[in-house]
Amino acid sequence: METLILHEDPCSGNCYKIRLTAALLGLPLERRFYDITKGETRTPQFLREVNANGRIPVLQVGERFLPESNAACWYLADGTALIPEDRFDRADMLRWMFFEQYNHEPNVATLRFWLSLIGEANLTEAQRGQIAGKRAAGEAALALMDQHLAQRGWFAGEGPSLADIALYAYTHVSEAGGFRLADYSAVQAWLARVAALPGYVAMD
Amino acid sequence: METLILHEDPCSGNCYKIRLTAALLGLPLERRFYDITKGETRTPQFLREVNANGRIPVLQVGERFLPESNAACWYLADGTALIPEDRFDRADMLRWMFFEQYNHEPNVATLRFWLSLIGEANLTEAQRGQIAGKRAAGEAALALMDQHLAQRGWFAGEGPSLADIALYAYTHVSEAGGFRLADYSAVQAWLARVAALPGYVAMD
Repeated sequence: METLILHEDPCSGNCYKIRLTAALLGLPLERRFYDITKGETRTPQFLREVNANGRIPVLQVGERFLPESNAACWYLADGTALIPEDRFDRADMLRWMFFEQYNHEPNVATLRFWLSLIGEANLTEAQRGQIAGKRAAGEAALALMDQHLAQRGWFAGEGPSLADIALYAYTHVSEAGGFRLADYSAVQAWLARVAALPGYVAMD
Repeated sequence: METLILHEDPCSGNCYKIRLTAALLGLPLERRFYDITKGETRTPQFLREVNANGRIPVLQVGERFLPESNAACWYLADGTALIPEDRFDRADMLRWMFFEQYNHEPNVATLRFWLSLIGEANLTEAQRGQIAGKRAAGEAALALMDQHLAQRGWFAGEGPSLADIALYAYTHVSEAGGFRLADYSAVQAWLARVAALPGYVAMD
């Protein structure tokens, strides 16, 4: 495989997903650091050379650049046991990865970023007005995960897949956004299973 | 393939993606209709039998249920030319599909839903407070698409893929959300290419 370089901010769960996927697969990954709170992913050079969308993570594969955390995880895991072989299970894994980006990340990750990294006092009025809605939507996402995991060990297929990695990243630090993991016992047991996987690395 | 049933609301672009994918592939699809504005996807029966997340579309494959539009498109297209064979291109296609769900749909589709289907006068105060932010984010998404398409015919790989279908669905009706397609000439030319694909079906 070509040289893999992760353009990242270590405080980002989206970046951590890629690092965790590479670690579980034993793939070497170089790292380049940016501070998103200082606008380092919005510079003209970053927009021109790394990602015109001004966001991290970006996985660099040789001379090519792949934004979007879950797409980068797919690239690393393509052809491995982290993507189910069964056609339905493979699509079902993607179902939970799209759920993660649509229902989970904008609520669970955003409240962690706002409340723990920026600080509530520094939020804009528009941001403060969204806290209650994001709290309810984040709790609904965690409850749906808990309901699903009450009946099975992993999100899709018979073993750990990219769906588990994608959902683990922001769930395991969700208390920094004011969520109470004690309310979701099946989620808690699943978090422990993920953390026990061979090759697991912790978030920085 | 097992019997395919699409649980949908015809006014939803997310549902249309699946119908368009099936049409381009020549796959028969039964349709079951729900009116989301009447809460028909939040009934106890729907939550229990179709999707605990209370949302459509859901693709039913025999006795199994697959929520999330882009995952359902993947299921239908798995092993066909709508998913690039090249490993990087395949991940790059997913990159644009995750972009669609994160940067495009919550802005471009939501403003169409709010302004054209619900009506601005019927919005809550919290919704009205988000219009300006969603307008700016939706315009940024369309501008990024236009920049990308200025240099290539399709979003990923050498031909049409699921990335084009996913992004087409809400882009081609974005003027109902107050966006001006005349501002994005490369996007307009690409919309015409998608509409000219063999097997293309229009949104209801």
